[in-house]
Amino acid sequence: SLLRAAVLIVSTTAAKDPSSDAADVALRDVFANHGGGQWSVAETKIVSDSVPQIQRQIMLWTDSVESPVNLIVTTGGTGFAVSDETPEAVSALLHKQAPGLVHAMLSASLSVTPFAMMSRPVAGVRNKTVIITLPGSVKGARENLQAVLKTLPHACLQAAGADSRALHAGG
Amino acid sequence: SLLRAAVLIVSTTAAKDPSSDAADVALRDVFANHGGGQWSVAETKIVSDSVPQIQRQIMLWTDSVESPVNLIVTTGGTGFAVSDETPEAVSALLHKQAPGLVHAMLSASLSVTPFAMMSRPVAGVRNKTVIITLPGSVKGARENLQAVLKTLPHACLQAAGADSRALHAGG
Amino acid sequence: SLLRAAVLIVSTTAAKDPSSDAADVALRDVFANHGGGQWSVAETKIVSDSVPQIQRQIMLWTDSVESPVNLIVTTGGTGFAVSDETPEAVSALLHKQAPGLVHAMLSASLSVTPFAMMSRPVAGVRNKTVIITLPGSVKGARENLQAVLKTLPHACLQAAGADSRALHAGG
Ligand code: NA
Repeated sequence: SLLRAAVLIVSTTAAKDPSSDAADVALRDVFANHGGGQWSVAETKIVSDSVPQIQRQIMLWTDSVESPVNLIVTTGGTGFAVSDETPEAVSALLHKQAPGLVHAMLSASLSVTPFAMMSRPVAGVRNKTVIITLPGSVKGARENLQAVLKTLPHACLQAAGADSRALHAGG
Repeated sequence: SLLRAAVLIVSTTAAKDPSSDAADVALRDVFANHGGGQWSVAETKIVSDSVPQIQRQIMLWTDSVESPVNLIVTTGGTGFAVSDETPEAVSALLHKQAPGLVHAMLSASLSVTPFAMMSRPVAGVRNKTVIITLPGSVKGARENLQAVLKTLPHACLQAAGADSRALHAGG
Repeated sequence: SLLRAAVLIVSTTAAKDPSSDAADVALRDVFANHGGGQWSVAETKIVSDSVPQIQRQIMLWTDSVESPVNLIVTTGGTGFAVSDETPEAVSALLHKQAPGLVHAMLSASLSVTPFAMMSRPVAGVRNKTVIITLPGSVKGARENLQAVLKTLPHACLQAAGADSRALHAGG
């Protein structure tokens, strides 16, 4: 069966005018065309640059007893402005930090553009769900997701309770 | 107008004999000759390897209502010795962590020398000021600053309140 | 005199049947054949995937007034499964984080396999002891240790109180 991903667009602009955000289309395209047929995008939500709104939506996806999603990708709010608080909002919810995913995303981005050093990605696990934060630019978000997408199924299956040895995984 | 940088030299030796420290001259040279004409070094201070002294000076620069500096670079105190507490002192003051800057500094340093793996850099934002910790060796400090200097204006302008989309920034 | 290393195998399986774990032999081989003649492996212990057991054994090695070890390497428990809690157990004990060592281990591993992005390494100092977490797979553990082993003597000597300038170290 397919792994279930959810997309959280963090953007005060897009929250007011959903049609203005191209990130959803772009990320669904990455899952569909670079995801090895392993993913369904279960849901997309748009929230403002607001820690409580970000955290509330993530916990709706991760803390549900019935059907937590396997992966949450956020896009937006990872810059240096006062309103950029996605990494802080996500980090506070993580039960495990995943520096290997952060390293892989930054390495891949930095090989494309030095502006990648301005991103502030966070990655990890809450309950049985893997969470990664992507940049707000459509190009940056695509590149970062592609950098880790082939490995995410293993991470998600481990987080969901699969046996790690059978997965040839890192731990 | 120019971006304002401040240099904090963390060194018990230099605090006793300021003439013994070459880091200030070296870092001013990097700002002047590799900074694209965008920087003025507003101030240099020397403090001992002391968490309260480090934090007090940083907060004088970042928490001033009138004229916070745009960038603080510290040099020294990032090693493994008991007295090396600059990363801990700085980290506790940050409102945002910047793992992309840390990654870029470490990647650049490790391409020069494996000893770079002994550095323990921290980078982030407090209020409207970007802060990065550089190694205590003059050579290491120069290399690390050069690795991120071209991108720092964008990070500093975002932190100071500029519009992020206009800056083509990472978040 | 030789630097003293300790190996902590974190594995519920190995804790029940010590003969089932190949990590100890492999890591002792790395210290003996790639350690430049500078290491003695003082002790190996096996504990279950249990935060209190991991922390208790580490503190026995680091908090001893008489003879703390210079280096602790753990292996296992760094993946994404619920039982993988070694990074969290170790991180809570660290007085200093060492992102340079983490970066070097991840960079080296990622150059071998993209699955390295699933590892969640932690490195740092507690009291006078350097601690690094290695993956549970024998291959991954070997590769990660080899990636940093040549630099670890300098880190360990600094942590133990040697003069940092004399060591040409990073801080
Ligand atoms: Na790298």
